Amino acid sequence: MALISPSRRIRRTPFSDGVEAAGVKAYTVYNHMLLPTVFRSMEEDYRHLKSAVQVWDVACERQVEVRGPDAGKLVQMLTPRDLRGMLPGQCYYVPMVDETGGMLNDPVAVKLAEDRWWISIADSDLLLWVKGIAHGYRLDVLIDEPDVSPLAVQGPKSDDLMARVFGDGVRAIRFFRFGIFDFQGRSLVIARSGYSKQGGFEIYVEGGDIAMPLWHALMEAGRDLDVAAGCPNAIERIEGGLLSYGNDMTRENTPHEAGLGRFCNTATAIGCIGRDALLRVAKEGPVKQVRAIEIDATALPRCDRAWPLMAGDRRVGQVTSAAVSPDHGCGAAIGMVRMTHWDAGTALSVVTQDGPLPARVRDGFWA
Amino acid sequence: MALISPSRRIRRTPFSDGVEAAGVKAYTVYNHMLLPTVFRSMEEDYRHLKSAVQVWDVACERQVEVRGPDAGKLVQMLTPRDLRGMLPGQCYYVPMVDETGGMLNDPVAVKLAEDRWWISIADSDLLLWVKGIAHGYRLDVLIDEPDVSPLAVQGPKSDDLMARVFGDGVRAIRFFRFGIFDFQGRSLVIARSGYSKQGGFEIYVEGGDIAMPLWHALMEAGRDLDVAAGCPNAIERIEGGLLSYGNDMTRENTPHEAGLGRFCNTATAIGCIGRDALLRVAKEGPVKQVRAIEIDATALPRCDRAWPLMAGDRRVGQVTSAAVSPDHGCGAAIGMVRMTHWDAGTALSVVTQDGPLPARVRDGFWA
Repeated sequence: MALISPSRRIRRTPFSDGVEAAGVKAYTVYNHMLLPTVFRSMEEDYRHLKSAVQVWDVACERQVEVRGPDAGKLVQMLTPRDLRGMLPGQCYYVPMVDETGGMLNDPVAVKLAEDRWWISIADSDLLLWVKGIAHGYRLDVLIDEPDVSPLAVQGPKSDDLMARVFGDGVRAIRFFRFGIFDFQGRSLVIARSGYSKQGGFEIYVEGGDIAMPLWHALMEAGRDLDVAAGCPNAIERIEGGLLSYGNDMTRENTPHEAGLGRFCNTATAIGCIGRDALLRVAKEGPVKQVRAIEIDATALPRCDRAWPLMAGDRRVGQVTSAAVSPDHGCGAAIGMVRMTHWDAGTALSVVTQDGPLPARVRDGFWA
Repeated sequence: MALISPSRRIRRTPFSDGVEAAGVKAYTVYNHMLLPTVFRSMEEDYRHLKSAVQVWDVACERQVEVRGPDAGKLVQMLTPRDLRGMLPGQCYYVPMVDETGGMLNDPVAVKLAEDRWWISIADSDLLLWVKGIAHGYRLDVLIDEPDVSPLAVQGPKSDDLMARVFGDGVRAIRFFRFGIFDFQGRSLVIARSGYSKQGGFEIYVEGGDIAMPLWHALMEAGRDLDVAAGCPNAIERIEGGLLSYGNDMTRENTPHEAGLGRFCNTATAIGCIGRDALLRVAKEGPVKQVRAIEIDATALPRCDRAWPLMAGDRRVGQVTSAAVSPDHGCGAAIGMVRMTHWDAGTALSVVTQDGPLPARVRDGFWA
């Protein structure tokens, strides 16, 4: 692996000082910002995440804030998910698509009020699309990237750690709901959400000045819980089938291909750009779709490119994320497979940069 | 420095095999793609670039292709530069702004034909803005990212190397013009341009399959010219005053603040989004602007964040790119300074993460 060159363009976060002090070993870049990927080792981080509690600098989940009388109308234009029943205090996972139904991002929409939303984005400059649409349609909204940096607390001991810092009230937050909690006199949005299957919270830290005080408070409060700095773990998220925009789906794919049809209400999402393009696929289903792929391997090269999935000489799909699972003793992968070969149990071959390996379509992910 | 974690999301380029074989030591991420930053060392790469010839994988300069009857109209909507006199065969450096005049990118527009353009972008997903505007205004255009990966040939021996591979005709290409040249039966756009002050070309390699054959042909042909794999060099580009979007200007800045007023014809750029917002600043000038900053230092920490520029206790600007110049024996930096302190010779202090250093505003860049 090569080094990463620092520059202002690859933005530090309000938590970077803490991340560095904790001995971060590797980064990726996400929304033009540093995202840690390894602290001790991928495997040690994985074991720790599944057994204790971690504090994650996910400031790179930037917010697109939409405010104003047309805010709700605009957010509905961006997604085939029907938002009519959504209440302030709720978070919705919302695939966002262009006029052809191609995915532009898969953010979480946080409805703060009828006229104020945060779109908590995956890795694309969704701000530019939202601004372009708002301008083109002459909508009465303000759109910006506020000084809000999510900090995630993830792992089985998350509730205990959070309760020590924010009080027992956090235990009552339901999945994909949020509440407002006080930290040093500041009101923070705290949601039960996060990019792991181990449970936990995301704290939307508003104002970079309280970022390190909060980081230290969590580390201090969790000492006997074995709290540690962590980050989204590639092995754990693949086991759990958590997709990554840019890896497992791109602008080439519809939400239905990404297996996100359950988050689409294409027929009733009136006003959604791309609705016409998606109606047919929403009804008939896609011709290829995301599947869990098990690879017969105890070691894998890094999945830094799409790996073709072959049925004999025929390319029937591709793997886009892969890692060896210590807990399951196999290669765990996320792939997209054509419908002719997507049934559970189908034997395929996956072509890595180091050669082909036997693979099999599973009926679901591991976690 | 930490390592960079590979994943499909951080896209490899059609030249990555060559870059790796040449021993790349560090990368940055640019338009969701790998961009090499160091081969031997920053200083050795710098010396070599100034004396020989380098081949650069700048595939990350992705193209936004705009085709169709409204293509010219749309491109003019994106920039305050007046494009009416632009002919097919020309490249224009075009600051692109939002409705408030804030910079969204500083690409090179390549006019292939009246109804076909490539916008060769800096590091932001400009595609999303262009698509949003085209959709909102119902323009008759097709917009996409084609399979086009620029390969730059830079350095004083660039003409000699290029002539060996493409024939002497390349020597006649004028600055920011392009011609069509043959390589193994394929027609390639070759422009006299590039992100250094050492002269050279950018080859718009259409079709990933001929990328490595071209890479090898250049390396083979240039053996006695001391050709080597290289990359945009931070020291050289700062000496030359080549700005970097995301480093030296962002969406917060107008083109005038970035010192790009000479590329704006705000009064006559009819149709430009953001024109109204820019008219006043175009006439009266900005209150802060990019300047060359000399720092009294023989060593500098990495400029991975904005460094405040102070006049006593008053913050009067910031440095956003900095490196020690071996040829000039000082710290060379790009900063933005308020008009009260931007005159050449003004003594300031620059606050790095390792403490303050004496600095001075220069009347121009070094190269």
